[in-house]
Amino acid sequence: MTKIWDNIPEIKNELNEVQEIIIKNLKTKNTKSIEKVIEHLLKANGKRVRAGLLILSAKIGEYDKDRILNLAASVEMIHLATLVHDDIIDDADTRRGIESIQHKFGKDSAVYTGDFIFAKAYRLLAGDYDLEENRITDGMEKVCLGEVFQNENKFNTDITVRKYLRIISGKTAAMFGLSMYAGAFESKLGHYKSRVIGYSGYYAGMAFQIIDDCMDYTNSPDKMGKNTRVDLFNGIYTLPIIYAVKNDVDNNIKNILNKKNINEDHVQKILHYVDEYKGVEQAIQLAEKYTKKSTDLINRIGNGKYVDITQKVLQNLIKRKY
Amino acid sequence: MTKIWDNIPEIKNELNEVQEIIIKNLKTKNTKSIEKVIEHLLKANGKRVRAGLLILSAKIGEYDKDRILNLAASVEMIHLATLVHDDIIDDADTRRGIESIQHKFGKDSAVYTGDFIFAKAYRLLAGDYDLEENRITDGMEKVCLGEVFQNENKFNTDITVRKYLRIISGKTAAMFGLSMYAGAFESKLGHYKSRVIGYSGYYAGMAFQIIDDCMDYTNSPDKMGKNTRVDLFNGIYTLPIIYAVKNDVDNNIKNILNKKNINEDHVQKILHYVDEYKGVEQAIQLAEKYTKKSTDLINRIGNGKYVDITQKVLQNLIKRKY
Repeated sequence: MTKIWDNIPEIKNELNEVQEIIIKNLKTKNTKSIEKVIEHLLKANGKRVRAGLLILSAKIGEYDKDRILNLAASVEMIHLATLVHDDIIDDADTRRGIESIQHKFGKDSAVYTGDFIFAKAYRLLAGDYDLEENRITDGMEKVCLGEVFQNENKFNTDITVRKYLRIISGKTAAMFGLSMYAGAFESKLGHYKSRVIGYSGYYAGMAFQIIDDCMDYTNSPDKMGKNTRVDLFNGIYTLPIIYAVKNDVDNNIKNILNKKNINEDHVQKILHYVDEYKGVEQAIQLAEKYTKKSTDLINRIGNGKYVDITQKVLQNLIKRKY
Repeated sequence: MTKIWDNIPEIKNELNEVQEIIIKNLKTKNTKSIEKVIEHLLKANGKRVRAGLLILSAKIGEYDKDRILNLAASVEMIHLATLVHDDIIDDADTRRGIESIQHKFGKDSAVYTGDFIFAKAYRLLAGDYDLEENRITDGMEKVCLGEVFQNENKFNTDITVRKYLRIISGKTAAMFGLSMYAGAFESKLGHYKSRVIGYSGYYAGMAFQIIDDCMDYTNSPDKMGKNTRVDLFNGIYTLPIIYAVKNDVDNNIKNILNKKNINEDHVQKILHYVDEYKGVEQAIQLAEKYTKKSTDLINRIGNGKYVDITQKVLQNLIKRKY
């Protein structure tokens, strides 16, 4: 796991168990391409933010370990499935028309592998939880709507901050919020407290995604621009560039983005302009506002041990390297 | 709806209501691409075989209309979602590398539109049913595994009958079986009877898919070879061609399939060989065997009005024009 959980052994250990549950649930017989994709995914060993936050919020209430870890695994599996489906799309190679048959096969399988992980996630949820109440399926819908809305706004150089926020609200914040809501609700914190905790998670998710998008523009020199390039090729314009475009009255950035083909030179110029027009700085300021909203909410729950830990985690989420 | 239900008004009317439930559940606000895909899907107005069979098997027991129609809608929505995802893949154009940006955008949205429909289907199921017992999520998993396995066997000219049967068992028969199982189980027919009815549905699904695959090779002259062509370009070899290859000791068919590019001429030759080597006839014989298994099972349930209707429907499923 990564740094977020490094100093919180009680969560880190649980996340290892969540990983075991996921592996157990995704086992298949004789379906090589599913096995391969899943192996790859599990090796990548993500941050498990959603699962970790769900467990944290559950620990604020009456923690029932088995019940909560299964729920955390299913939330993380839903996230894994969307990652598999994202990979089908966020692929600059495809846009340029280069696609080997083998590559294509991989993609075909990816569609169904994602579906398979969804089905397994829902199955893990089936029977044991009040899905109507814990609202996990609600989150799934919102993720899809966010992704579709992002897709509808590809190559839209006039995309507004408002639209960007609607996209990340769906594709990231909703699931953060519902993970924390579900954790709290399943730990008998009741509707009101669960909702406050859920909203806290929602705002943390907004901040998290904004920082994630900033990192594409601020990563260490060797990685610099790597994700940016893929996003730019795919026409995905995130907050740093949206702010920069807004501040760039001479339309320097737009003129580049509207070119038919974007090359390495263009990417470098865009990175320069985003820096000049303070796109990242402004985006970080907004992320900090969301984080404040998030921690203000969690503080309303009182000040037990796990409220304090949660508050710190929510704060640290935006302190990743930028 | 199509002919299958034309003479059974009590099912046809219910299926119209199922359609209404689906439309109501798939409504979104301001997400044009989802709306477009869904509108298109609903216009196409499929046979609704799974929903119809679920309702039929439910009518054998204590029929609770609202409960059953929601369940039928969710099964049909899961099927719709897989159709959306199938479209991403079964596209000869893509294989030949021709893909307009607009087309590509449509595909990107299709991934998430499918996911969205899945999420909505599961949500419809959430809370109201004992998912552990009615096993719908089980069906979903099997569909994915079937599709992945089909994908792994693309362009495999040595694909065996056994492998083909494993593919269709997953991608079609499992969901037929579980639809009928769930209908029966939710109508209080108990585990034993529900299982018999479920297996009857499973075998009917095997027969249905074989006939579907035969129709690619036997359709009316104007349509002839249309689907066949797409399947052949995509390397999907179904039962008629598998049998023909088996009977074709001179490897005439394999020699064509192993060519790098298949053109119209090749398709015509393959159609000729499949006819000569009796691929379709042999496939139909197997479908008839499965249908017999299916109706033998349903007859074990007794002979009430709806058992009789179900039996006729199961028989008619393979009497589509061939």
